[in-house]
Amino acid sequence: MGETLVHATPRTLTEGDRALYTALYPTRFALYSSDPFARDCGLPENPLEDLIGFHVAFGKTVPDVSLNAVANLGYAECRFLAPVYPGDTLSTVSTVIGLKENSSGRTGIVWVRSVARNQAGEDVLTWVRWVMVRKRDADAPAPPATVPELADAVGAEELVLPDEAFSFQNYDFHLAGEPYRVDDYEVGEVIDHVDGVTVTEAEHMMATRLWQNTSKVHFNVEAREDGRRLIYGGHVISLARALSFNGLANAQAIAAINAGSHANPCFAGDTVYAWSEVLDKAELGVPGVGALRLRLVATKGRTDAPALRGGDGKYAANVLLDLDYWALVPT
Amino acid sequence: MGETLVHATPRTLTEGDRALYTALYPTRFALYSSDPFARDCGLPENPLEDLIGFHVAFGKTVPDVSLNAVANLGYAECRFLAPVYPGDTLSTVSTVIGLKENSSGRTGIVWVRSVARNQAGEDVLTWVRWVMVRKRDADAPAPPATVPELADAVGAEELVLPDEAFSFQNYDFHLAGEPYRVDDYEVGEVIDHVDGVTVTEAEHMMATRLWQNTSKVHFNVEAREDGRRLIYGGHVISLARALSFNGLANAQAIAAINAGSHANPCFAGDTVYAWSEVLDKAELGVPGVGALRLRLVATKGRTDAPALRGGDGKYAANVLLDLDYWALVPT
Amino acid sequence: MGETLVHATPRTLTEGDRALYTALYPTRFALYSSDPFARDCGLPENPLEDLIGFHVAFGKTVPDVSLNAVANLGYAECRFLAPVYPGDTLSTVSTVIGLKENSSGRTGIVWVRSVARNQAGEDVLTWVRWVMVRKRDADAPAPPATVPELADAVGAEELVLPDEAFSFQNYDFHLAGEPYRVDDYEVGEVIDHVDGVTVTEAEHMMATRLWQNTSKVHFNVEAREDGRRLIYGGHVISLARALSFNGLANAQAIAAINAGSHANPCFAGDTVYAWSEVLDKAELGVPGVGALRLRLVATKGRTDAPALRGGDGKYAANVLLDLDYWALVPT
Repeated sequence: MGETLVHATPRTLTEGDRALYTALYPTRFALYSSDPFARDCGLPENPLEDLIGFHVAFGKTVPDVSLNAVANLGYAECRFLAPVYPGDTLSTVSTVIGLKENSSGRTGIVWVRSVARNQAGEDVLTWVRWVMVRKRDADAPAPPATVPELADAVGAEELVLPDEAFSFQNYDFHLAGEPYRVDDYEVGEVIDHVDGVTVTEAEHMMATRLWQNTSKVHFNVEAREDGRRLIYGGHVISLARALSFNGLANAQAIAAINAGSHANPCFAGDTVYAWSEVLDKAELGVPGVGALRLRLVATKGRTDAPALRGGDGKYAANVLLDLDYWALVPT
Repeated sequence: MGETLVHATPRTLTEGDRALYTALYPTRFALYSSDPFARDCGLPENPLEDLIGFHVAFGKTVPDVSLNAVANLGYAECRFLAPVYPGDTLSTVSTVIGLKENSSGRTGIVWVRSVARNQAGEDVLTWVRWVMVRKRDADAPAPPATVPELADAVGAEELVLPDEAFSFQNYDFHLAGEPYRVDDYEVGEVIDHVDGVTVTEAEHMMATRLWQNTSKVHFNVEAREDGRRLIYGGHVISLARALSFNGLANAQAIAAINAGSHANPCFAGDTVYAWSEVLDKAELGVPGVGALRLRLVATKGRTDAPALRGGDGKYAANVLLDLDYWALVPT
Repeated sequence: MGETLVHATPRTLTEGDRALYTALYPTRFALYSSDPFARDCGLPENPLEDLIGFHVAFGKTVPDVSLNAVANLGYAECRFLAPVYPGDTLSTVSTVIGLKENSSGRTGIVWVRSVARNQAGEDVLTWVRWVMVRKRDADAPAPPATVPELADAVGAEELVLPDEAFSFQNYDFHLAGEPYRVDDYEVGEVIDHVDGVTVTEAEHMMATRLWQNTSKVHFNVEAREDGRRLIYGGHVISLARALSFNGLANAQAIAAINAGSHANPCFAGDTVYAWSEVLDKAELGVPGVGALRLRLVATKGRTDAPALRGGDGKYAANVLLDLDYWALVPT
């Protein structure tokens, strides 16, 4: 409890990472695609996609947190606190905030809160993960169980805007690609993002390396018994987020990720589609800027009737990702 | 007629796009590869390959012009009016300049003239496309037919140099890779570019996404009945142009594209070769700078005797691309 | 003898090349990944990976030296004399320093010393290669044989640091990822780098194009009788070097390459692993900076007992690369 882990390797992000992100995912959100558009939103220049920072910061923790974990159990309370601009360097530090032995006595659950900071020492991203790990010595007594209290979702009042000057007052809906504002969406509404992408081995490996994620199951056909490379969950997140442009073109910035489940594995050759459900709407006290809380679901293959779970309450077999997040949207 | 379409999403181009272009196509033209070489040609820095601007500007129009078109029929009068430098942002606007109902009454042809501008509002690229589309209501009366007059080719006197200071006076033929000047080529001469490239799925999808072209047939094996991903025509153009370095290393800049036909579809696994025919030569009134009008032909597999068309006047089965363009070449 | 070859095409390297390198190889060396880390080592900014400069400089010589060679026989005395920073432009010039006719009278060996310089005219990299080529006219008398004397290895005293201000005094071992210093390694020690990467066609072709290496066997399934694309040896070097992070995370900079053999061909689908042997250790007269001379071996598949050669003295069938180099390491 309380142990702090300084993760290697700090990573300077650049326009090269943006270009690769654009080549790997069909993203078209104007805030990240166009420098003048970002300036019109009050930013000093166009930031890198929020998920670039997320993947890099998250990837740093893999060797120390999850590389040898039995299972990745979940993440929560992920808040985006500052944009990442080309030239920024991210470093990540984690603190153990929870420990609990499983009933078997052989494994336990560890909760860590991680913070990614830029070269100026500003917090850029913070989140909590929990993983199941083996006990080093099954016979050793376990420390007292400490289970952290985690919010089901980041509250709208806790969302942080990218900049003090951030605003959608000069927002150009023609350039952004769709006319929809927060009020054009209804809670409970389901949006089919229509397009699908068939995934290749080269693409998911390039993406995963770019975030310096070293988990061997993503790169090595000899690492799993079935001889298949498991696609990094973050690749599916970015694919689904990019596909969501069709119908959510104005869901420009990710402000928080409340929860995420990688319901089924994804492999090269799968064709990934996405749909979203509007979970909540919020005002943010800044003129023109609101937020949508969205469930983003990636599926393998397309279904006419989007269904998250089967009658047994379990994720449907074609569901790859169930992501709950807040996006900033013009009001 | 006269309707104006403002296309989403503006796109800021960077050194990241240049690096990806170099990774995806075997390009070695010195003007775009070397900053000092470009400065020696009178430019403030080395611009991005002309086809990067072309693909991005063109890709912007896809959702509004051709995504649901029955057929892409052609393009013409494509003129390159200003270089694209890293940091420049391109936006594209189109105007409907022609309409004609087909005899079936169910479809018609639409001509649009598109202009891509940079963040300073300067025209960077302009071209005309025409596509066949379905009528929204087959029973509605068609507007009066208007067929725009289009030039067979951009006149040499209309070609625009990249900069007022542009010149080949300090041109280093050793660094450029070949000693040939305009006068070393003869009209009618055919140049075999020798090398071939076998195409992969990952590469053409990354290229096509980079230009934010969203046409699903390029990405999704479930989009076509044959389960194959159709390679974006622009990918074949860039491949062929890069291959043409062997024999045309000094055809540095593209000044205009007069016409282009994608004669047959290209798929992953195809090995693409190229040959060129010299169609015309021109002086441009600037010391040291001339132009070659070239037919650039991409083929699937290599043939000893380049043939564009069969005895029936149709494109030969192995011809993928027939592109007619003007390039700037030292005199 | 003495002939000088000015190679096309000069190449300006950028952050785009760094990002692609990171996407193509699982590299995590802090000196190249983090701008603040590089500044803490006394550099003005973080340089590009040394092998980027090596591949680009080397690729320039391919059309003039090895494209039509019968065999690449070896390289030696490769010294890294200055870092390559984003924006630098590399040009390469070669001089013939040795000639020797083979006993057949049909072929001969040519030695060339190449120098890559940046836009300021500073030497960045120098090396010697020798290749077997056909005589233009088998009946012509051969010039007198001249075989240059080449060192088995660059001497530690000849190693050049990246900058006058270069130092490991402020080195952060947590951020670098491992605690090991020069004295933690023993000559003769073998390090298993554990991870493996299964190679794809798209990745090796993108890498090879990025260095503007044009050798057709890497790109064209019609170029070899077996219909397979041979993976560029430099791709295997970069893969192995990146994999060596596990155990050699502090072997930050490459100062010299003493020798390299591409023992067996590598093809897409191969899973590449790596191990290293410590060949020598050196002090460099700069506080905190030492050097390790390392043998880096890439293998196809993993073996429990690393073996370079079989009982017959020949390379084992699973050995792809045997590279002898000097790396700068904290003392």
